[in-house]
Amino acid sequence: MTVELISVGTEILLGNIVNTNAAFLSCECAKLGLSCYYQTVVGDNAERLALVLKTALERSDIVILGGGLGPTQDDLTKEIAAKVCGKEMHLDEDAKKHIEDYFARKGKVIPDNNWKQAMIPADSVVLHNPNGTAPGVIIEYGEKRVILLPGPPNELKPMFLDQVVPYIRDMLPGIILSKTVKICGIGESRVEEMIEDMINAQTNPTIATYAKTAEVHLRVTAKADDEAQAKKLLKPVVKELKNRFGTTIYTTDEAVTLEMAIAELLLANNLTISTVESCTGGLLAGRIINVPGISDVFKTGFITYSNKAKRKLVGVKKSSLEKYGAVSRQVAEEMAVGLKDFTKADVVISTTGIAGPDGGTKEKPVGLVYMCCMAGNVKVTRELNLNGNRAKVRESAVANALILLRECLLEYVSENTFGKE
Amino acid sequence: MTVELISVGTEILLGNIVNTNAAFLSCECAKLGLSCYYQTVVGDNAERLALVLKTALERSDIVILGGGLGPTQDDLTKEIAAKVCGKEMHLDEDAKKHIEDYFARKGKVIPDNNWKQAMIPADSVVLHNPNGTAPGVIIEYGEKRVILLPGPPNELKPMFLDQVVPYIRDMLPGIILSKTVKICGIGESRVEEMIEDMINAQTNPTIATYAKTAEVHLRVTAKADDEAQAKKLLKPVVKELKNRFGTTIYTTDEAVTLEMAIAELLLANNLTISTVESCTGGLLAGRIINVPGISDVFKTGFITYSNKAKRKLVGVKKSSLEKYGAVSRQVAEEMAVGLKDFTKADVVISTTGIAGPDGGTKEKPVGLVYMCCMAGNVKVTRELNLNGNRAKVRESAVANALILLRECLLEYVSENTFGKE
Repeated sequence: MTVELISVGTEILLGNIVNTNAAFLSCECAKLGLSCYYQTVVGDNAERLALVLKTALERSDIVILGGGLGPTQDDLTKEIAAKVCGKEMHLDEDAKKHIEDYFARKGKVIPDNNWKQAMIPADSVVLHNPNGTAPGVIIEYGEKRVILLPGPPNELKPMFLDQVVPYIRDMLPGIILSKTVKICGIGESRVEEMIEDMINAQTNPTIATYAKTAEVHLRVTAKADDEAQAKKLLKPVVKELKNRFGTTIYTTDEAVTLEMAIAELLLANNLTISTVESCTGGLLAGRIINVPGISDVFKTGFITYSNKAKRKLVGVKKSSLEKYGAVSRQVAEEMAVGLKDFTKADVVISTTGIAGPDGGTKEKPVGLVYMCCMAGNVKVTRELNLNGNRAKVRESAVANALILLRECLLEYVSENTFGKE
Repeated sequence: MTVELISVGTEILLGNIVNTNAAFLSCECAKLGLSCYYQTVVGDNAERLALVLKTALERSDIVILGGGLGPTQDDLTKEIAAKVCGKEMHLDEDAKKHIEDYFARKGKVIPDNNWKQAMIPADSVVLHNPNGTAPGVIIEYGEKRVILLPGPPNELKPMFLDQVVPYIRDMLPGIILSKTVKICGIGESRVEEMIEDMINAQTNPTIATYAKTAEVHLRVTAKADDEAQAKKLLKPVVKELKNRFGTTIYTTDEAVTLEMAIAELLLANNLTISTVESCTGGLLAGRIINVPGISDVFKTGFITYSNKAKRKLVGVKKSSLEKYGAVSRQVAEEMAVGLKDFTKADVVISTTGIAGPDGGTKEKPVGLVYMCCMAGNVKVTRELNLNGNRAKVRESAVANALILLRECLLEYVSENTFGKE
């Protein structure tokens, strides 16, 4: 079954906003096993919108339109879709009540033009919008489906996941089930090499690779008659991936991020953590602290951007700074040791590097980063040569620091577990 | 003159990557004064790509295709474009030499399939690619232009700005000149209210508004016969905006970010800065440190996520934490005062808040953030109620902290300047 996406909005055509809705919908449709061959962006213009929709309906089974469901005269996605599909509009009492309730909750008077949002084309399923006033609509147009969603991502995403996904699942023969295997610390081309035989031999399940900064995600997707059957198909493939990639897999749960996996390790083992950052300047702590509940183990972080701060706060030796320079293996190690002395945290990590654009030399080019992690007796120092501009070098340094942190944690936990046996 | 964008790549259709190239190209085309009515995404499929390109050529003057210029058999944008335009392909000696030089510099052997990248359609302008092996191409097809660009953003963007922009400018009668006025600390709807009369009366120059987190950017665009004329048209409008928005305008230079404007103030007045963060947990320092050269004034930052760290590092009183709670005006102030005592920095700023999803109460809901900034005798504490999920609350808190920082800096600098007179 094929799907096609149409994003409606002049602000996308002007480059004012990046079309993240299309990426989200494409990704979710791929998970459902739908094939998407076209995405289109068109402005709030009746003629061009009708043209694009007609073209899409000629070549795709499902057409999803995002945006243009607002209350103003400019918003005409619903009216045009109804016209193209030859459906009359009528006032939907449920949608009307929802709008009344929404404004009552906010203690506001309903503007006159908001009633437009309660008008629904005939032969449609109304999609409830808990995060706004514009209801979504699924128009049943013969065998085809035209799905209208509000443009704001915080309205579109939950509406799609909670109401459209189940609707589409019901349309499909059998079911589609995915499992995401998230790998860190191995490059994309190496990952692809390691599973080349599996990809070449794949029929059902299929494996798709997604490259992220310092991570590769493998999505394994099975089609089957029912969920039990799909799970049975997924199981041996996921098992084989676990065999091949071992502990470089940090999760098989799509919702879990690398920092969440690390937080889980810290919390489960009751280990506190501290950070001391130079080139990453707070971004490493910033990412760790993005995990809710991390306050139980993350107590303190330092940003020692100047040499003086490195000396004063974490006791880096003046002689080391002079002899090896601030960006060196020795200073990264002294930062970690000094941090541990100061905070008494169970796990500490340091970063120091040259983010650019200036400050690089032939011996120490832009992108050179040292980091040191200590977890109990485990101590690992790493040298990296990262590519890209200042922002990219810092982002990659943070990702690599998280990977180092996880490796040290795993080693420490495994040693301590063995020790206790 | 109209332009249309076609992004070629299965990875966009799968939702693997967000189409940032389209946003970039749309934005740059708008600056050139081109009207963009359609953007399309299509996979690396000969038939569908040809269909999309033909449709685009029927309705637009310039068609820009991004992606599909790689060396593999899958990459067929150039071949299909040549076919649709009825142009023969020939080996371009310059392009061939560039590929040879590129691989020689990297000390690598040239794979056989890379020669494909030196094949160019007849009646074309070859665009040099300093960041990769795929040259870009402008096919001159009657009055129309088909512009082919490599997909990787770090190749596409400089090629477009350095080579395509001048080419298109030459095609246009007269010139287009823009000036971006960046405003912080006023909401989008308030900004629009304040310039409603200007927008309603606009003909040339035009004003377009772009909303960012805690910022609004106004792009003023003039069309004229020559640059001097365009500048003359822009000047009174920019002046009027400066009158209306005063010091909330932090720059009229498109390349300058809010943190860069702040860094400039710090560096120009030789003021050092320190940060102490709770809810923003390093992200505020992380953003300030994104400015190259900031190391001259940013020495130290603290992340005091736990109450203990707040007490130990920046001397927050135990009684204040007990009486007012960690998220309070008093604690934000004590953090700033303690930070100033510790680091002796000229300017200090603190943040403490509830980022969620848990930890909120009726009195102190998720999104409540306090921040305190001190610059010399200037001391301002601010309470904010921010919307969104954990990541959004933290991002907004960082943006608002930068705005507070700038306000205090301006006040301090103006007071000190007056004092010296």
